[in-house]
Parts: sequence; C-alpha cells; structure tokens
Amino acid sequence: MNDLNFKRVAIIGVGLIGGSFALALKKYGFAGKIAGTGRKKENLARAKEMGLIDEYSTSASESVSDADLIVLSTPVGQFEDIFKTIRKNIKAGAIVTDVGSVKTEAIKILEPLMPPGVNFVGSHPIAGKERSGIDSASPDLFKNARCIVTPTPDTDKNSLKKILALWTELGSKTSLMSPEQHDWIFAATSHLPHIIAYALINTILDLNQNTLPHSGPSLRDMTRIALSSPELWRDICLCNKENILKSLNQFLSSITHLKGLIEKSDADGLEKEFQKAQTGRRLLEKAEP
Amino acid sequence: MNDLNFKRVAIIGVGLIGGSFALALKKYGFAGKIAGTGRKKENLARAKEMGLIDEYSTSASESVSDADLIVLSTPVGQFEDIFKTIRKNIKAGAIVTDVGSVKTEAIKILEPLMPPGVNFVGSHPIAGKERSGIDSASPDLFKNARCIVTPTPDTDKNSLKKILALWTELGSKTSLMSPEQHDWIFAATSHLPHIIAYALINTILDLNQNTLPHSGPSLRDMTRIALSSPELWRDICLCNKENILKSLNQFLSSITHLKGLIEKSDADGLEKEFQKAQTGRRLLEKAEP
Repeated sequence: MNDLNFKRVAIIGVGLIGGSFALALKKYGFAGKIAGTGRKKENLARAKEMGLIDEYSTSASESVSDADLIVLSTPVGQFEDIFKTIRKNIKAGAIVTDVGSVKTEAIKILEPLMPPGVNFVGSHPIAGKERSGIDSASPDLFKNARCIVTPTPDTDKNSLKKILALWTELGSKTSLMSPEQHDWIFAATSHLPHIIAYALINTILDLNQNTLPHSGPSLRDMTRIALSSPELWRDICLCNKENILKSLNQFLSSITHLKGLIEKSDADGLEKEFQKAQTGRRLLEKAEP
Repeated sequence: MNDLNFKRVAIIGVGLIGGSFALALKKYGFAGKIAGTGRKKENLARAKEMGLIDEYSTSASESVSDADLIVLSTPVGQFEDIFKTIRKNIKAGAIVTDVGSVKTEAIKILEPLMPPGVNFVGSHPIAGKERSGIDSASPDLFKNARCIVTPTPDTDKNSLKKILALWTELGSKTSLMSPEQHDWIFAATSHLPHIIAYALINTILDLNQNTLPHSGPSLRDMTRIALSSPELWRDICLCNKENILKSLNQFLSSITHLKGLIEKSDADGLEKEFQKAQTGRRLLEKAEP
C-alpha cells in the first residue's frame, strides 16, 4: 500500500462507498491522512468520530489541496460542478479517480477538466449498494468484489497502474474495460435490474399496498435493490440514458412476448421461454461471482 | 403429530416439495407409512433409498389406496388427470390436500371430484422453490415459512382443522385466505416476479450472452427464481391467467412510465418514482418474513 506513495487522500462524498473506501485504506495499511468532504457537516463530523476520516471540511477545495489521491464518491450528477470548484486547488502529480456506476459521460466531462499534471482514471467497484450512508460502511466492502477500471486512450499509464494496484490492495479483483463497453454491459446487468425492481415495487403499491406483507423470499430478494438511493439511480439513468433505453426496450419486448403467450394460453411457448431463461440463469450460477 | 390419526400418507409427485414434506413428516414425529408415486421410477427408487418414502409405485391409484392423507405435489396442470385416475381408489374418511401455488382453478376442478366421505383442503406452503428435485429436499423447508390454507364454503371444518394442525407441526406459520384472495395477492407478489425474472434473463441473453458473467450480486439475487421449474411456472401462468395479466399490465404501465421519464431526462420525476419504491420496499423490510 505504501509503495503507492499516497500520503494524503481526499474523499469527496463520505457515504457507503466513500466511507468504506476510507475504512479499507486504513485496514489495508494506508499510513497517511484521509480528508473527507461533503454537503452535510454532521455526517462528516460523525465520520471523523467513527474513525473513518482524519479530518473534514465542507469545502471540497480545502480538502483536496495537497491530496495525492482524490476519490469522487458522490452521485455522478454532481461530478461536474464539484470538479469545476476544486480543480484549481489540486496539486500537480495528483491522481483523481471516481467510483461511479456510469463511466462514458462522467469521463467525457472530467478528462478535459484535469489541470496540467493531474491524471484521471475511472473506477467502478461492483459492491452492494442497496444501503447507503456511513453506518453501512465496511472495510471489506470491496474485498473479493470486482472492480472495473476504465482507461481511455488519454489515460496516463503510470496512474492506471497505481489505481489498479490500489484496488488490488483493498481486496478487489480488477478488470479493464473501455468506458463505452462498461456502460453497455452495466446498462443490461445492473441499471435495467434496478429500474425493474423500482417498477415492481411501485406496481404492487399501485395494485394494493396491503399485499406487500404477503410477499415471500422471492419478492424480497428481487426488490432488495429498490432500497438503493433514488438520487444515485436518478443520475445513473440520466447519464447512461441511451444504453438503458436500449436494454429497456429489449426487456419490454421480452416481457410483452411472455404476456402474449399467457393471453393465448400457449403452454408450449411459455415452457420454451422459461426453459431458455432457466438455462441462461444456470450460466450465471457457473460464472465467477 | 400422531393425534392427527394419519397412519398412511400418499405423496403424489416426489420432488422438492413432496420430498421435503415426507422428510418433515418423519422429522416431526409421524409414525406411519409414506407412499410415494410419480412419473419416473428411478426418481421414486432413489427417494426410497434416501429414506424419504417407505414404499413407491408408479401407479398413483395403488399408492393412494388405504391412505388417510393424500398430498398432491405435482405441477397444478396435472391435478385433474391424476385425480380422475385415483379418485375411485381413495377410501372414505381420507383427506386430500395440495401444495400448489394457484388455488382457485385447482379447487374448482378438485372439489367436485371428491368421492363421498373424502374431503379436500387446499394448501400453499410459501417455501423457496427455485431448486427442484429430491436432492434439494429438506425436512425444514417449511419451518418458519408461511403456509396459506384456502378453505371454501364447502370445506369440511374438521379436515380444515387437521390440515392447519399438520402444517403447524411441520413448523409453518399458517394463515387462512379464500382461494380468490390468494390468487390475486400471489399474482402480484410471486407470479409476476417470476415472469419478470425469466424475461430479464432472456433480455440479457438476447442482448448479448457474453454480458451475463459480468453481473454483480444484484442481478444474481434478482434472477435466482429464473432457476425455477419451467413446467411448474407454465402451469401457474395458465391457471392464474386473469390475475397475472392484470398484474402484468400494471407492471408494464409502471415501467413504461419510468421509460418515458428517462426519455425526457425528467430528473425530478425519476427521483420521485424511485423514492416511492424505496419507501414501499422499506415496508417490506419491516413486515414479518
């Protein structure tokens, strides 16, 4: 960890992910200082009290000055405004990363804003996020989880190496993808499922709220992610709009097809579609978690 | 358990549920004989070898003769044919129950077929069913799980009492519902989620099968139930068609609304809908499992 030469880390947005990142740094041997910044002073004060961060300021500019590593862990919709405010205070040689679930648009905004000598490398740790806030933070949130790192042709090779090494130190299994490939894949495998989970809960509420307590474990597991932060997911939907709409249209076509088969009482057609899905889901069972 | 005076139990369909029922009977003190019947001789032979059942026959008629309790645990679409075959062999005084996930249509078919002196009481144990087959059977599958018992105006009160007592002995928390109320509620909270899970996996397969291994824990949890038996869920869709179509239409309206908000980049609208779902899902967190 200390080979990486990060002496001061600034975490912008100390919630579940930012807080867990701070805890992980400390657990896995980071010897420097962690500065936290965010919108709510009380939250930052508690994060310090709980030992997640060493110091805090509600001024992001203040927090980033002299930092060697800056981690953006707010909802992606805030990246641009925040970065425009802090960029003048970032020292040359610093590395900026983020933990956002959408990469293309965020990187398109952030890369051109990097001051001379400051390098950006995008990251996306795939870690359970249906809880939010520092009370759910854990030093092992990233342990054994995948972390996608998304370099562009402009990414500084040395900074990329350091960010990959950092996530590895925190226990993550890293892999590389282009931002575009990342956003296309995660539209289908993460963003679409979240939208479906939200829609499913709203469906049941609209049908009859009293039916909710009758749900078994399947509905619970299926809608766990509807506990996720509305603000975070609003931003993800807007930042990955085109990919999400493509996935959503494909899903609407799949489910409308099933609806048609039910309407026609097409037993063979239904069984065939369910069989296809069962076989597909088994692939997931075999794939590495 | 032995107060119930069941000396011989016949289980029609020895899979996950039928097999677990047999194991639970034995674990919780049933001292009589368990006869199993089903389509596949090898499966029945293995069930006997594994100690789930005491004897077996591929002739359901043979298995039910002299049974005090008959449990239908095949997919619901088979109930009618099977029952027409076995009804002449059922002795007066016997009780018939089922474990099907759809009640109204099954009961409409079964009740009039009961021979004189034979009473039917419908049951629906809410137990994890994404695995099938006797290898997944467990004596504690029903323990602490809810079991809905669905009497009709024609249900014999004494038989109802015995079936409720039986499920309680196996560790279930029983509750009563009319078949119609049951089917309306479970269309929304169980059948719809299964159809969505199947459709979601098919969506990802159709978009690009190679993206499947990139899924995180959220997609895995959300689609676990797509591992469920295609044959079972085909039957459920057909037997609860009207309720399922109503739920499905409401879901299509919810998700199409979200799609419209994404298309318009309506940040406030999206956040409001996600907030509604998050609040609704929290109700589920508080509800008894």
